[in-house]
Amino acid sequence: MKKKGLLIVVSGPSGVGKGTICKEYLSQYENCALSVSATTRSPREGEVDGVNYFFISHEEFRKKIDAGGFLEHAVFCDNYYGTPKDAVMEKLEEGKNVILEIEVQGALQVRSHYPEAVFVFVIPPSMEELESRLRGRGTESEDVIAKRLERAKAEFKYIDKYNYILVNDTVSEAVDRLSNIIKAEDCVMARNYKFIEEEFIK
Amino acid sequence: MKKKGLLIVVSGPSGVGKGTICKEYLSQYENCALSVSATTRSPREGEVDGVNYFFISHEEFRKKIDAGGFLEHAVFCDNYYGTPKDAVMEKLEEGKNVILEIEVQGALQVRSHYPEAVFVFVIPPSMEELESRLRGRGTESEDVIAKRLERAKAEFKYIDKYNYILVNDTVSEAVDRLSNIIKAEDCVMARNYKFIEEEFIK
Repeated sequence: MKKKGLLIVVSGPSGVGKGTICKEYLSQYENCALSVSATTRSPREGEVDGVNYFFISHEEFRKKIDAGGFLEHAVFCDNYYGTPKDAVMEKLEEGKNVILEIEVQGALQVRSHYPEAVFVFVIPPSMEELESRLRGRGTESEDVIAKRLERAKAEFKYIDKYNYILVNDTVSEAVDRLSNIIKAEDCVMARNYKFIEEEFIK
Repeated sequence: MKKKGLLIVVSGPSGVGKGTICKEYLSQYENCALSVSATTRSPREGEVDGVNYFFISHEEFRKKIDAGGFLEHAVFCDNYYGTPKDAVMEKLEEGKNVILEIEVQGALQVRSHYPEAVFVFVIPPSMEELESRLRGRGTESEDVIAKRLERAKAEFKYIDKYNYILVNDTVSEAVDRLSNIIKAEDCVMARNYKFIEEEFIK
Protein backbone atom coordinates (compact mmCIF):
# COMPACT_ATOMS: atom_id res chain seq x y z
CA MET A 1 0.00 0.00 0.00
CA LYS A 2 1.43 3.36 -1.01
CA LYS A 3 1.06 5.82 1.85
CA LYS A 4 0.42 9.48 1.25
CA GLY A 5 3.10 11.88 2.42
CA LEU A 6 2.60 14.31 5.29
CA LEU A 7 2.15 18.05 4.91
CA ILE A 8 4.08 19.70 7.74
CA VAL A 9 3.26 23.35 8.36
CA VAL A 10 5.96 25.20 10.31
CA SER A 11 5.34 28.62 11.84
CA GLY A 12 6.94 30.70 14.53
CA PRO A 13 7.95 34.27 15.32
CA SER A 14 10.51 36.16 13.29
CA GLY A 15 14.00 35.44 14.60
CA VAL A 16 13.16 32.09 16.20
CA GLY A 17 15.19 30.15 13.63
CA LYS A 18 12.46 28.17 11.86
CA GLY A 19 14.13 28.63 8.45
CA THR A 20 17.38 27.13 9.71
CA ILE A 21 15.55 24.17 11.28
CA CYS A 22 13.62 23.42 8.06
CA LYS A 23 16.73 23.74 5.87
CA GLU A 24 18.75 21.48 8.16
CA TYR A 25 15.93 18.92 8.36
CA LEU A 26 15.61 18.84 4.55
CA SER A 27 19.36 18.32 4.16
CA GLN A 28 19.20 15.29 6.49
CA TYR A 29 15.98 13.63 5.35
CA GLU A 30 15.58 12.76 1.69
CA ASN A 31 11.90 11.90 1.53
CA CYS A 32 10.86 15.49 2.12
CA ALA A 33 10.53 18.60 -0.03
CA LEU A 34 10.04 22.28 0.69
CA SER A 35 6.88 23.71 -0.79
CA VAL A 36 7.54 26.26 -3.55
CA SER A 37 5.34 29.38 -3.39
CA ALA A 38 3.80 31.20 -6.32
CA THR A 39 4.17 34.98 -6.57
CA THR A 40 3.33 37.85 -8.88
CA ARG A 41 6.50 39.75 -8.07
CA SER A 42 9.35 39.80 -10.61
CA PRO A 43 12.21 37.35 -10.20
CA ARG A 44 15.32 38.80 -8.60
CA GLU A 45 18.72 38.06 -10.05
CA GLY A 46 19.57 34.40 -9.73
CA GLU A 47 16.04 33.29 -8.83
CA VAL A 48 14.80 30.31 -10.86
CA ASP A 49 11.15 29.74 -11.78
CA GLY A 50 9.86 26.57 -10.09
CA VAL A 51 12.79 26.50 -7.64
CA ASN A 52 12.66 29.75 -5.64
CA TYR A 53 9.11 30.61 -6.68
CA PHE A 54 6.61 29.93 -9.41
CA PHE A 55 6.55 33.36 -11.08
CA ILE A 56 3.08 34.02 -12.51
CA SER A 57 1.08 37.05 -13.63
CA HIS A 58 -1.54 38.87 -11.54
CA GLU A 59 -4.21 37.52 -13.89
CA GLU A 60 -3.07 33.92 -13.55
CA PHE A 61 -2.87 34.33 -9.79
CA ARG A 62 -6.41 35.67 -9.50
CA LYS A 63 -7.77 32.91 -11.76
CA LYS A 64 -6.06 30.31 -9.57
CA ILE A 65 -7.55 31.87 -6.43
CA ASP A 66 -11.05 31.68 -7.95
CA ALA A 67 -10.46 28.05 -8.90
CA GLY A 68 -9.49 27.19 -5.30
CA GLY A 69 -5.96 26.51 -6.46
CA PHE A 70 -4.16 27.77 -3.34
CA LEU A 71 -3.77 26.21 0.10
CA GLU A 72 -3.25 29.78 1.30
CA HIS A 73 -2.42 33.15 -0.17
CA ALA A 74 -1.76 36.74 0.90
CA VAL A 75 -0.92 40.14 -0.50
CA PHE A 76 2.37 41.78 0.47
CA CYS A 77 3.68 45.07 -0.98
CA ASP A 78 1.11 44.94 -3.83
CA ASN A 79 2.14 41.43 -4.84
CA TYR A 80 0.38 38.12 -4.32
CA TYR A 81 2.12 35.21 -2.62
CA GLY A 82 0.56 31.77 -2.24
CA THR A 83 1.02 28.01 -1.92
CA PRO A 84 -0.21 26.21 -5.05
CA LYS A 85 -2.36 23.26 -4.03
CA ASP A 86 -1.61 21.05 -7.06
CA ALA A 87 2.18 21.07 -6.62
CA VAL A 88 1.85 20.11 -2.94
CA MET A 89 -0.81 17.45 -3.51
CA GLU A 90 1.24 15.83 -6.28
CA LYS A 91 4.20 15.33 -3.95
CA LEU A 92 1.98 14.03 -1.13
CA GLU A 93 0.38 11.51 -3.50
CA GLU A 94 3.88 10.30 -4.46
CA GLY A 95 4.41 9.54 -0.76
CA LYS A 96 6.77 12.45 -0.25
CA ASN A 97 6.49 14.69 2.82
CA VAL A 98 6.22 18.41 2.19
CA ILE A 99 7.32 21.18 4.55
CA LEU A 100 5.55 24.50 4.34
CA GLU A 101 7.23 27.32 6.26
CA ILE A 102 4.60 29.96 6.68
CA GLU A 103 3.26 32.66 9.01
CA VAL A 104 0.27 32.17 11.27
CA GLN A 105 -2.51 33.61 9.09
CA GLY A 106 -1.39 31.43 6.17
CA ALA A 107 -1.25 28.37 8.43
CA LEU A 108 -4.84 28.97 9.53
CA GLN A 109 -5.90 29.04 5.86
CA VAL A 110 -4.07 25.74 5.23
CA ARG A 111 -5.80 24.27 8.25
CA SER A 112 -9.23 25.01 6.81
CA HIS A 113 -8.32 23.50 3.40
CA TYR A 114 -6.23 20.56 4.56
CA PRO A 115 -6.86 19.75 8.23
CA GLU A 116 -4.85 16.50 8.06
CA ALA A 117 -1.65 18.56 7.86
CA VAL A 118 0.66 18.55 10.88
CA PHE A 119 0.99 22.01 12.44
CA VAL A 120 4.23 22.80 14.23
CA PHE A 121 4.98 26.08 16.01
CA VAL A 122 8.63 26.87 16.70
CA ILE A 123 9.20 28.70 19.98
CA PRO A 124 12.31 30.13 21.61
CA PRO A 125 13.24 28.76 25.06
CA SER A 126 11.94 32.06 26.52
CA MET A 127 10.72 35.50 25.48
CA GLU A 128 14.02 37.03 26.67
CA GLU A 129 15.91 34.64 24.41
CA LEU A 130 13.83 35.71 21.38
CA GLU A 131 14.57 39.34 22.14
CA SER A 132 18.26 38.64 22.50
CA ARG A 133 18.29 36.69 19.21
CA LEU A 134 16.61 39.57 17.37
CA ARG A 135 19.03 42.03 18.95
CA GLY A 136 21.98 39.72 18.24
CA ARG A 137 21.49 40.06 14.50
CA GLY A 138 22.75 43.62 14.97
CA THR A 139 20.98 44.74 11.83
CA GLU A 140 17.69 45.96 13.27
CA SER A 141 16.82 49.22 15.01
CA GLU A 142 15.22 49.18 18.49
CA ASP A 143 11.99 50.24 16.85
CA VAL A 144 11.99 47.26 14.47
CA ILE A 145 12.87 44.88 17.31
CA ALA A 146 9.99 46.21 19.41
CA LYS A 147 7.60 45.73 16.47
CA ARG A 148 8.79 42.16 15.88
CA LEU A 149 8.28 41.32 19.55
CA GLU A 150 4.78 42.78 19.46
CA ARG A 151 4.04 40.72 16.39
CA ALA A 152 5.44 37.59 18.02
CA LYS A 153 3.12 38.14 21.00
CA ALA A 154 0.16 38.50 18.64
CA GLU A 155 1.13 35.26 16.86
CA PHE A 156 1.43 33.33 20.13
CA LYS A 157 -2.29 33.85 20.62
CA TYR A 158 -2.96 31.37 17.81
CA ILE A 159 -0.56 28.76 19.11
CA ASP A 160 -3.36 26.46 20.27
CA LYS A 161 -4.31 25.92 16.61
CA TYR A 162 -1.06 24.01 16.21
CA ASN A 163 -0.50 20.32 17.04
CA TYR A 164 3.06 20.55 18.31
CA ILE A 165 5.52 23.01 19.74
CA LEU A 166 9.17 22.78 18.82
CA VAL A 167 11.50 24.49 21.27
CA ASN A 168 14.51 25.82 19.37
CA ASP A 169 17.18 25.56 22.05
CA THR A 170 19.80 24.21 19.66
CA VAL A 171 19.24 23.59 15.96
CA SER A 172 20.31 19.94 16.11
CA GLU A 173 17.96 19.15 19.00
CA ALA A 174 15.10 20.95 17.26
CA VAL A 175 15.77 19.03 14.03
CA ASP A 176 15.76 15.74 15.96
CA ARG A 177 12.45 16.67 17.56
CA LEU A 178 10.95 17.58 14.19
CA SER A 179 12.08 14.21 12.90
CA ASN A 180 10.48 12.47 15.91
CA ILE A 181 7.22 14.28 15.26
CA ILE A 182 7.17 13.35 11.57
CA LYS A 183 8.00 9.70 12.28
CA ALA A 184 5.40 9.50 15.07
CA GLU A 185 2.73 11.06 12.86
CA ASP A 186 3.36 8.21 10.45
CA CYS A 187 2.20 5.84 13.22
CA VAL A 188 -0.95 7.81 14.08
CA MET A 189 -3.98 5.52 14.05
CA ALA A 190 -6.17 7.67 11.80
CA ARG A 191 -3.43 7.75 9.13
CA ASN A 192 -3.21 3.95 9.08
CA TYR A 193 -6.77 2.88 9.73
CA LYS A 194 -7.59 2.05 6.10
CA PHE A 195 -4.67 -0.38 5.89
CA ILE A 196 -5.55 -1.93 9.25
CA GLU A 197 -9.17 -2.33 8.33
CA GLU A 198 -8.26 -4.12 5.09
CA GLU A 199 -5.60 -6.34 6.60
CA PHE A 200 -6.94 -7.13 10.07
CA ILE A 201 -10.62 -6.27 10.46
CA LYS A 202 -12.53 -7.06 7.27
CA MET B 1 8.95 23.81 35.17
CA LYS B 2 8.80 20.15 36.09
CA LYS B 3 6.87 18.26 33.43
CA LYS B 4 4.72 15.28 34.28
CA GLY B 5 5.75 11.96 32.78
CA LEU B 6 3.73 10.16 30.14
CA LEU B 7 1.68 7.04 30.74
CA ILE B 8 2.14 4.81 27.71
CA VAL B 9 -0.36 1.97 27.37
CA VAL B 10 0.81 -0.83 25.09
CA SER B 11 -1.55 -3.52 23.81
CA GLY B 12 -1.55 -5.99 20.97
CA PRO B 13 -2.45 -9.59 20.16
CA SER B 14 -0.74 -12.53 21.81
CA GLY B 15 2.41 -13.45 19.91
CA VAL B 16 2.97 -10.02 18.36
CA GLY B 17 6.05 -9.35 20.49
CA LYS B 18 4.86 -6.42 22.60
CA GLY B 19 6.65 -7.71 25.72
CA THR B 20 9.97 -7.84 23.87
CA ILE B 21 9.50 -4.30 22.52
CA CYS B 22 8.69 -2.87 25.97
CA LYS B 23 11.61 -4.71 27.62
CA GLU B 24 14.04 -3.53 24.95
CA TYR B 25 12.72 0.04 25.12
CA LEU B 26 13.11 0.11 28.92
CA SER B 27 16.68 -1.18 28.67
CA GLN B 28 17.57 1.67 26.28
CA TYR B 29 15.71 4.59 27.87
CA GLU B 30 16.35 5.40 31.49
CA ASN B 31 13.57 7.85 32.23
CA CYS B 32 10.90 5.17 31.97
CA ALA B 33 9.54 2.48 34.26
CA LEU B 34 7.30 -0.52 33.78
CA SER B 35 4.12 -0.40 35.80
CA VAL B 36 3.96 -3.08 38.51
CA SER B 37 0.58 -4.82 38.84
CA ALA B 38 -1.11 -5.86 42.04
CA THR B 39 -2.48 -9.37 42.38
CA THR B 40 -4.18 -11.62 44.90
CA ARG B 41 -2.43 -14.75 43.66
CA SER B 42 0.44 -16.19 45.69
CA PRO B 43 4.02 -15.32 44.71
CA ARG B 44 5.80 -17.98 42.66
CA GLU B 45 9.34 -18.97 43.49
CA GLY B 46 11.72 -16.08 42.92
CA GLU B 47 9.00 -13.44 42.57
CA VAL B 48 9.61 -10.34 44.66
CA ASP B 49 6.87 -8.17 46.15
CA GLY B 50 6.92 -4.70 44.58
CA VAL B 51 9.09 -5.89 41.68
CA ASN B 52 7.16 -8.60 39.84
CA TYR B 53 3.85 -7.80 41.52
CA PHE B 54 2.43 -6.15 44.58
CA PHE B 55 1.05 -9.23 46.37
CA ILE B 56 -2.04 -8.28 48.37
CA SER B 57 -5.00 -10.08 49.93
CA HIS B 58 -8.46 -10.40 48.38
CA GLU B 59 -9.77 -8.09 51.06
CA GLU B 60 -7.19 -5.40 50.41
CA PHE B 61 -7.82 -5.67 46.67
CA ARG B 62 -11.56 -5.23 47.02
CA LYS B 63 -11.12 -2.25 49.36
CA LYS B 64 -8.77 -0.66 46.84
CA ILE B 65 -11.32 -1.21 44.04
CA ASP B 66 -14.03 0.51 46.12
CA ALA B 67 -11.68 3.42 46.81
CA GLY B 68 -11.04 3.90 43.07
CA GLY B 69 -7.45 2.81 43.58
CA PHE B 70 -6.97 1.00 40.28
CA LEU B 71 -6.47 2.34 36.78
CA GLU B 72 -7.87 -1.01 35.65
CA HIS B 73 -8.45 -4.45 37.09
CA ALA B 74 -9.69 -7.88 36.06
CA VAL B 75 -10.31 -11.35 37.43
CA PHE B 76 -8.36 -14.27 35.99
CA CYS B 77 -8.50 -17.85 37.34
CA ASP B 78 -10.21 -16.68 40.56
CA ASN B 79 -7.52 -14.09 41.25
CA TYR B 80 -7.62 -10.34 40.90
CA TYR B 81 -5.03 -8.46 38.83
CA GLY B 82 -4.87 -4.68 38.58
CA THR B 83 -2.79 -1.55 38.05
CA PRO B 84 -2.53 0.49 41.27
CA LYS B 85 -3.21 4.12 40.49
CA ASP B 86 -1.04 5.62 43.26
CA ALA B 87 2.19 3.87 42.23
CA VAL B 88 1.74 5.01 38.61
CA MET B 89 0.75 8.59 39.50
CA GLU B 90 3.71 8.96 41.83
CA LYS B 91 6.15 8.14 39.02
CA LEU B 92 4.36 10.43 36.55
CA GLU B 93 4.52 13.30 39.05
CA GLU B 94 8.27 12.73 39.37
CA GLY B 95 8.50 13.32 35.62
CA LYS B 96 9.12 9.66 34.84
CA ASN B 97 7.35 7.95 31.96
CA VAL B 98 5.50 4.73 32.78
CA ILE B 99 4.80 1.86 30.38
CA LEU B 100 1.76 -0.28 31.01
CA GLU B 101 1.60 -3.47 28.96
CA ILE B 102 -1.98 -4.58 29.07
CA GLU B 103 -4.78 -6.24 27.10
CA VAL B 104 -7.53 -4.35 25.33
CA GLN B 105 -10.24 -4.44 28.00
CA GLY B 106 -7.79 -3.13 30.61
CA ALA B 107 -6.63 -0.39 28.24
CA LEU B 108 -10.22 0.78 27.77
CA GLN B 109 -10.56 1.04 31.56
CA VAL B 110 -7.35 3.11 31.75
CA ARG B 111 -8.67 5.33 28.98
CA SER B 112 -11.76 6.20 31.00
CA HIS B 113 -9.73 6.97 34.15
CA TYR B 114 -6.73 8.67 32.55
CA PRO B 115 -7.51 9.83 28.99
CA GLU B 116 -4.23 11.77 28.70
CA ALA B 117 -2.35 8.45 28.48
CA VAL B 118 -0.83 7.53 25.12
CA PHE B 119 -2.40 4.37 23.67
CA VAL B 120 -0.22 2.25 21.41
CA PHE B 121 -1.36 -0.91 19.65
CA VAL B 122 1.33 -3.28 18.40
CA ILE B 123 0.45 -5.03 15.15
CA PRO B 124 2.24 -7.67 13.09
CA PRO B 125 3.14 -6.75 9.48
CA SER B 126 0.24 -9.01 8.38
CA MET B 127 -2.25 -11.55 9.74
CA GLU B 128 -0.26 -14.36 8.08
CA GLU B 129 2.84 -13.19 9.91
CA LEU B 130 1.03 -13.31 13.27
CA GLU B 131 -0.12 -16.86 12.54
CA SER B 132 3.37 -17.91 11.56
CA ARG B 133 4.82 -16.33 14.73
CA LEU B 134 2.32 -18.18 16.92
CA ARG B 135 3.06 -21.40 15.07
CA GLY B 136 6.81 -20.73 15.20
CA ARG B 137 6.83 -20.96 18.97
CA GLY B 138 6.25 -24.69 18.46
CA THR B 139 4.66 -24.97 21.88
CA GLU B 140 1.00 -24.50 21.05
CA SER B 141 -1.54 -26.94 19.59
CA GLU B 142 -3.47 -26.02 16.42
CA ASP B 143 -6.51 -25.56 18.61
CA VAL B 144 -4.76 -23.00 20.84
CA ILE B 145 -3.36 -21.18 17.80
CA ALA B 146 -6.82 -20.93 16.23
CA LYS B 147 -8.22 -19.56 19.51
CA ARG B 148 -5.44 -16.95 19.77
CA LEU B 149 -6.08 -15.80 16.21
CA GLU B 150 -9.81 -15.50 16.92
CA ARG B 151 -9.01 -13.46 19.98
CA ALA B 152 -6.61 -11.25 18.03
CA LYS B 153 -9.37 -10.55 15.49
CA ALA B 154 -11.73 -9.62 18.31
CA GLU B 155 -9.10 -7.26 19.79
CA PHE B 156 -8.47 -5.56 16.44
CA LYS B 157 -12.05 -4.29 16.59
CA TYR B 158 -11.02 -1.89 19.38
CA ILE B 159 -7.93 -0.63 17.59
CA ASP B 160 -9.50 2.76 16.82
CA LYS B 161 -9.49 3.52 20.57
CA TYR B 162 -5.70 3.69 20.36
CA ASN B 163 -3.65 6.74 19.29
CA TYR B 164 -0.86 4.94 17.47
CA ILE B 165 -0.08 1.69 15.75
CA LEU B 166 3.34 0.17 16.06
CA VAL B 167 4.20 -2.31 13.34
CA ASN B 168 6.51 -4.96 14.77
CA ASP B 169 8.53 -5.84 11.69
CA THR B 170 11.83 -5.96 13.56
CA VAL B 171 12.22 -5.31 17.29
CA SER B 172 14.81 -2.55 16.81
CA GLU B 173 12.66 -0.66 14.31
CA ALA B 174 9.62 -1.01 16.56
CA VAL B 175 11.61 0.26 19.57
CA ASP B 176 12.81 3.25 17.54
CA ARG B 177 9.24 4.04 16.53
CA LEU B 178 8.06 3.77 20.14
CA SER B 179 10.82 6.19 21.09
CA ASN B 180 9.73 8.59 18.31
CA ILE B 181 6.14 8.46 19.56
CA ILE B 182 7.14 9.16 23.17
CA LYS B 183 9.43 12.05 22.19
CA ALA B 184 6.81 13.53 19.85
CA GLU B 185 4.12 13.30 22.54
CA ASP B 186 6.38 15.43 24.69
CA CYS B 187 6.01 18.19 22.04
CA VAL B 188 2.21 17.92 21.79
CA MET B 189 0.63 21.36 22.22
CA ALA B 190 -1.88 20.38 24.88
CA ARG B 191 0.88 18.93 27.08
CA ASN B 192 2.85 22.20 26.93
CA TYR B 193 0.12 24.80 26.83
CA LYS B 194 0.39 25.77 30.48
CA PHE B 195 4.09 26.59 30.13
CA ILE B 196 3.48 28.49 26.88
CA GLU B 197 0.66 30.49 28.38
CA GLU B 198 2.80 31.51 31.35
CA GLU B 199 5.92 32.33 29.34
CA PHE B 200 4.54 33.78 26.10
CA ILE B 201 0.89 34.72 26.33
CA LYS B 202 0.10 36.18 29.75
